[in-house]
Amino acid sequence: MIRAEIITIGDEILYGQITDTNTQWISAELDKIGIRTVRKSSVGDTEEAILQIFNEASQRADLVIVTGGLGPTKDDITKKTFCKYFGSSLEIHPQALIDLTAFFKKRGREVTGLNKGQAELPTNATYIENTMGTAPGMWFEHEGVVYISMPGVPYEMKGLMTLSLLPKIQEHFKTPVIFHKVIRTVGIGESLLAEMIDEWEDALPSHIKLAYLPSMGSVKLRLTGFGDNIDTLEQEVEAEFQKVLPIIQEFVYGFGNDELEEVVGRLLKEKGLTVSVAESCTGGYLGHQFTKVAGSSAYFMGGILSYSNEVKINQLGVKAETLAKFGAVSEETVIEMSENIRKLCNTSFGLATSGIAGPDGGTPDKPVGTIWIAIASEHQTITKKLQLGGFREQNIHLTAINILNLLRKTWL
Amino acid sequence: MIRAEIITIGDEILYGQITDTNTQWISAELDKIGIRTVRKSSVGDTEEAILQIFNEASQRADLVIVTGGLGPTKDDITKKTFCKYFGSSLEIHPQALIDLTAFFKKRGREVTGLNKGQAELPTNATYIENTMGTAPGMWFEHEGVVYISMPGVPYEMKGLMTLSLLPKIQEHFKTPVIFHKVIRTVGIGESLLAEMIDEWEDALPSHIKLAYLPSMGSVKLRLTGFGDNIDTLEQEVEAEFQKVLPIIQEFVYGFGNDELEEVVGRLLKEKGLTVSVAESCTGGYLGHQFTKVAGSSAYFMGGILSYSNEVKINQLGVKAETLAKFGAVSEETVIEMSENIRKLCNTSFGLATSGIAGPDGGTPDKPVGTIWIAIASEHQTITKKLQLGGFREQNIHLTAINILNLLRKTWL
Repeated sequence: MIRAEIITIGDEILYGQITDTNTQWISAELDKIGIRTVRKSSVGDTEEAILQIFNEASQRADLVIVTGGLGPTKDDITKKTFCKYFGSSLEIHPQALIDLTAFFKKRGREVTGLNKGQAELPTNATYIENTMGTAPGMWFEHEGVVYISMPGVPYEMKGLMTLSLLPKIQEHFKTPVIFHKVIRTVGIGESLLAEMIDEWEDALPSHIKLAYLPSMGSVKLRLTGFGDNIDTLEQEVEAEFQKVLPIIQEFVYGFGNDELEEVVGRLLKEKGLTVSVAESCTGGYLGHQFTKVAGSSAYFMGGILSYSNEVKINQLGVKAETLAKFGAVSEETVIEMSENIRKLCNTSFGLATSGIAGPDGGTPDKPVGTIWIAIASEHQTITKKLQLGGFREQNIHLTAINILNLLRKTWL
Repeated sequence: MIRAEIITIGDEILYGQITDTNTQWISAELDKIGIRTVRKSSVGDTEEAILQIFNEASQRADLVIVTGGLGPTKDDITKKTFCKYFGSSLEIHPQALIDLTAFFKKRGREVTGLNKGQAELPTNATYIENTMGTAPGMWFEHEGVVYISMPGVPYEMKGLMTLSLLPKIQEHFKTPVIFHKVIRTVGIGESLLAEMIDEWEDALPSHIKLAYLPSMGSVKLRLTGFGDNIDTLEQEVEAEFQKVLPIIQEFVYGFGNDELEEVVGRLLKEKGLTVSVAESCTGGYLGHQFTKVAGSSAYFMGGILSYSNEVKINQLGVKAETLAKFGAVSEETVIEMSENIRKLCNTSFGLATSGIAGPDGGTPDKPVGTIWIAIASEHQTITKKLQLGGFREQNIHLTAINILNLLRKTWL
């Protein structure tokens, strides 16, 4: 198996001043093409630290991926240090200068002195064009090890990897043919899911691997097949997929890159259905889940954030006696909220949430994390009580996930 | 300066299956007490890899902080590997067993075989109680280097560090007295801010350092003083702070751990003022900014998500002719939205957003990122046009930041 090491260069990441999202993304992409990351490291902007990690990494890995330290200022010493490490020197790369000049020209600017330095590359570098920024990517081969250098700006790095470097890595290392299938689940924890499918998992052929990728409220299962022939592999992975699907069907909401709010949105759009929301404890977060999806105006009409009882009564038309008798966090209240918002916005469905997100406001009867959700349709209103009890932001997030999934399972 | 190295153990992080947020948090905390992180590494769950990184780290650092690999299952080999590295052995730690038993009892459970192993510690470990979970923290001293081991679960790790380990580190290493002052700004980029204050920055005494901590839409400035006497230091940092404040005053919204939505909420509460929102392009995100703050029901009454024109007209009372004549993304529309929501919800302020979040929907006149915001008060309504043009989620986030800041600057 090809072994990779990922190195991040920069004081800002080392001292915790900015978040490094590149390393996780790169290792996940390498994992998908069957390359094993064996070490991730972050070092500061000093020649000594960079040379030391290059030396160490070259002994452990076949592929060394380096991000950061390629800016135009004097703090950024990655290129100089590569030269020292390889025994090469910096020279203007003609194509890099042409691309850099074009990049600036497109934005109505000239290449100035400091920026012109970005077209200087170590003499042993293979130039990789960066269409999204001014620091080029570089590819080196040295004593049997491949080194890749990229800027640390996440979208520039992702552009370079996706467009140029991942295909080049696959070609260079003749990585095996890989086929992935991702199953996305919601409403079940990782360990329960693992128990449900452990017999199936144990019986998987050795060239098909399963990975659990959990996040808050959902778990992705990724099947990865390794082989020589893509068609055979696809059939084999598909066959395993067909075996496991019936076992976990009720928790599966999508595949591949599907997000729950996208799947729900797509189904609503396909069926010509619309939604509105009446949010109390989620306070806008549920609306945001719908509207962060591009094109959501096709099915999301709007809603009311009825945080106070006055807004529940005056704008949403919840009966004062319902609130007085059962409280804002009750099945009776969410039923009225969901039915009224559906009528007010003239939508296929009305979704309502009311609960105690915390940290305060809990009672022995209704502790923090007690949340009622309801969905009204033309002929029927369904409700569900959630007992969450986590931190405030978790309670809000999980409420949104739960009601989206309830809508999907019941009516989409 | 004390040199630290942070090591994360676990295949899941190495292969990019889960996000590592611990490393950044730890290095930022160390930075605050004047300890310099010199390397961060992530290795897999193999004895060879762990021993190798321990050996390397002990040569570079005075303090080696290790997270992960402390679970009860056989994959988790950190403790065994520590024993091998130190030449010690695992033994039940009496106090650890007492605390573990109490932890389970509180949750109505018995300590079973697999979990009992969590009370086994290397014989040379100093036991550090973990009140939030079952895997104890550990402190080792070996050949002049301190090693700390903690579970990888973020809130358990943070609890251990904050309650026990950071004070113990400061005591052990006799770290210098440190005083921090954080200034939080919004509405100006890092490089413009740096230009504004560069004379002041250049004149800072050598024992007071400045760090820029940028995030989307805001920049924190952190002044850190190092010395012997906390009172003198506090005065010195405060004096520098008083010099810089007038230069950047208009961009300063808070200090320390203040978040913009918390500052706005606190000011509203103090002054007995209330808000409501009429959201089009932000689709609930602005409401979520208010309501994710605990206790926000004191000042956030509610609002209307008027995503469709029908909801703008029927629920919010925007005139159909305003929409027809000027469009939904116009100053005229957001003025009506903000004034109407203020009256409907009977609040001190009504906030409104309408814009083209993208990626679709832009026109030559109104490209993606064109956003109008308005705030209505009893006697006056103010508006602002934003020209953002980033990605959809950025446009939504920056719109919320802008309107919160406009409210703060104008009326709070």
